[in-house]
Amino acid sequence: MSEVPKGYRFAVVAAEFKKKSRFDLGAIVSDVEAVAAGVFTKNIFVAAPVARCKQMLAQRLTARAVVVNSGQANACTGAEGDSNCRKTQELVGAALGVDAKQVLVASTGVIGVQLKMKNWALAMPALQKSLGNTDAFDVAAAIMTTDTVRKTATARVELSTGMARLFGMTKGAGMICPDMATMLGFIICDAQVDPSWWATALRECVDLSFNRITIDGDTSTNDTVLALANGASGAAASTASDRDALKAALLEICRELAYKIVQDAEGGTKVARIRVSGANDEAQAALVARAIGNSPLVKTALFGRDPNWGRIVAAAGRSGAEFKASDLVLTIGSITVFENGQPAPGDMDTLLAPVMNQADIEIGVSLGKGRGEYELVASDLTRDYVTINADYRS
Amino acid sequence: MSEVPKGYRFAVVAAEFKKKSRFDLGAIVSDVEAVAAGVFTKNIFVAAPVARCKQMLAQRLTARAVVVNSGQANACTGAEGDSNCRKTQELVGAALGVDAKQVLVASTGVIGVQLKMKNWALAMPALQKSLGNTDAFDVAAAIMTTDTVRKTATARVELSTGMARLFGMTKGAGMICPDMATMLGFIICDAQVDPSWWATALRECVDLSFNRITIDGDTSTNDTVLALANGASGAAASTASDRDALKAALLEICRELAYKIVQDAEGGTKVARIRVSGANDEAQAALVARAIGNSPLVKTALFGRDPNWGRIVAAAGRSGAEFKASDLVLTIGSITVFENGQPAPGDMDTLLAPVMNQADIEIGVSLGKGRGEYELVASDLTRDYVTINADYRS
Repeated sequence: MSEVPKGYRFAVVAAEFKKKSRFDLGAIVSDVEAVAAGVFTKNIFVAAPVARCKQMLAQRLTARAVVVNSGQANACTGAEGDSNCRKTQELVGAALGVDAKQVLVASTGVIGVQLKMKNWALAMPALQKSLGNTDAFDVAAAIMTTDTVRKTATARVELSTGMARLFGMTKGAGMICPDMATMLGFIICDAQVDPSWWATALRECVDLSFNRITIDGDTSTNDTVLALANGASGAAASTASDRDALKAALLEICRELAYKIVQDAEGGTKVARIRVSGANDEAQAALVARAIGNSPLVKTALFGRDPNWGRIVAAAGRSGAEFKASDLVLTIGSITVFENGQPAPGDMDTLLAPVMNQADIEIGVSLGKGRGEYELVASDLTRDYVTINADYRS
Repeated sequence: MSEVPKGYRFAVVAAEFKKKSRFDLGAIVSDVEAVAAGVFTKNIFVAAPVARCKQMLAQRLTARAVVVNSGQANACTGAEGDSNCRKTQELVGAALGVDAKQVLVASTGVIGVQLKMKNWALAMPALQKSLGNTDAFDVAAAIMTTDTVRKTATARVELSTGMARLFGMTKGAGMICPDMATMLGFIICDAQVDPSWWATALRECVDLSFNRITIDGDTSTNDTVLALANGASGAAASTASDRDALKAALLEICRELAYKIVQDAEGGTKVARIRVSGANDEAQAALVARAIGNSPLVKTALFGRDPNWGRIVAAAGRSGAEFKASDLVLTIGSITVFENGQPAPGDMDTLLAPVMNQADIEIGVSLGKGRGEYELVASDLTRDYVTINADYRS
């Protein structure tokens, strides 16, 4: 497949961690040591695989493989969880012919439950057999939990020394408010890159993409984005303009994947793009965007296609950001609905009806003359979200 | 009615602000000037009646009447909203024989819509006729919006100079996360009190009651608690122990009303009492309690009776409070489910099943050895909450 970077092989298996007969264990293997970078959850309770990846990447900025399971998050599992995590590295390393110290790990699923080590062991022969006989899209399917679609993105970038490719995959549909989130993202690239530049580029791209989405305001214990670059294309990010081009492609991948997470929000029917500007600084703009994007009242109004803009203004007003009430200008779509402290003229219910019927809705909030800006992509809140999360484990 | 404080009369009318044939305008009138205290929303967008009450109470600490409407919140309504608010004071003052400057005002309903001044004018004769021919419970009914029950509380307190009575009423079922919230509360008392002591006592009691509940984390533009004390019982809060007794009764009223709001949460089926202790300080304890109480994942698990405690731990971990992961101890009911960074032994699903079936659930979170404590009372999140708020205006 021409859109997948060179020098990677893939493996998947149905290990029955939770449900029968679906892929729930996947691996990505680079033929050679790849430059590896990671960005992780800021939750105090970091899952065992997150802690392990952080240790590994603190010691060396390369890896040969990534292994991911769904079903159990291996978070809040104590010393047994750490030990199980290391055992999975050994098992997968042995099965795939990679040094265990070069196997990065990620898990997603229920918190507080130990990995099913017996299933892991039993799955290894099939995983080995699968290596090279499956593709990246199957790995993207294996990491799904409540996701309804697999989420991938691809890019090509022409560097001075040749063409490089990027392929990204992600999962996440609930417990999503990445700072870094129950989201996982894996990006592979066949360019040759400088390790510390790649780490910085990933961090910056994640901050502008995955960290600017919210489904339910719940930041998970397992949020992880890993990016590998193995140089197999022969194209190197050697000049400044090469690096700019590669970083732009990386950002594009991250943004596309982040958007797809919100689009596949648990029970979601709409995506709101909340653009806040004119704040005193970016942090203040973020407070307002997050108060709106996480407000259950705003989110249910979006679901109900109800142009009940007072809820948006009220959320901004309780956000903790400092601004004058008379300075706020609210637009929905391209329509100004509130300014100078009062409703804009016109029959808003009629004017806004076509906007509220769209699947993508733009909400603009200007707070004044400051230079602080922030954009957040948020889902709506629906009966199905409640159903999915009231019944998640059953 | 012996439970209602002396020296107050009540009036209600169906003014058809939103629906037909239900009380939506209510008034409380004290026979004499009463000491008046108020606590209001901290939202930047304060509703016109909130701004007006603040102005009035900054000038004098007494009032003769309180008038409340449901249907329109008179928030985000600009200069026209302010002007309408003053006109309602004039209208109601004239109808009830009270100086307009002595009429405190409160509104609840849809944000961004002007008051229906024609309906106000037309309702005045009926309001006048109603005065003295109705009771406090009808006023409690008139202030309801999505509330399903009227919410009142009463107390008696024996002061050194005689018996005093308190009567409280409140409304609120959504947009509830008072800091001071779309909640309104009115408390009347027939004790004789010092005005500045009464104001301080109210503020302290509100902080320990209404400010410690959450339904959806959305703080409204209209949150108001007003408390009148008219001295009509002849009993004065003259000694220190009198004041302690009266304040204890006031707190009891506030807590009972606050609890009733959560019990009547939009679509709610459960009340969770979240007790956080061992934090570095109260603010840190509050961060953890609010992260848990506002987490959609925790709230849907409560609705689903799912002992998915990992969501509680994850919410604490992302709250922003500082603590060590290994120090957190989580109890649900009286059962320890997580400590030392790992699940407590035992089959939690079986042990917790009876607890999860209760209507009231106690969640205890200990963070370490600090002295910071905070208790928050929170509702669950249900399909009915979504339905109510997706369809609120239609």
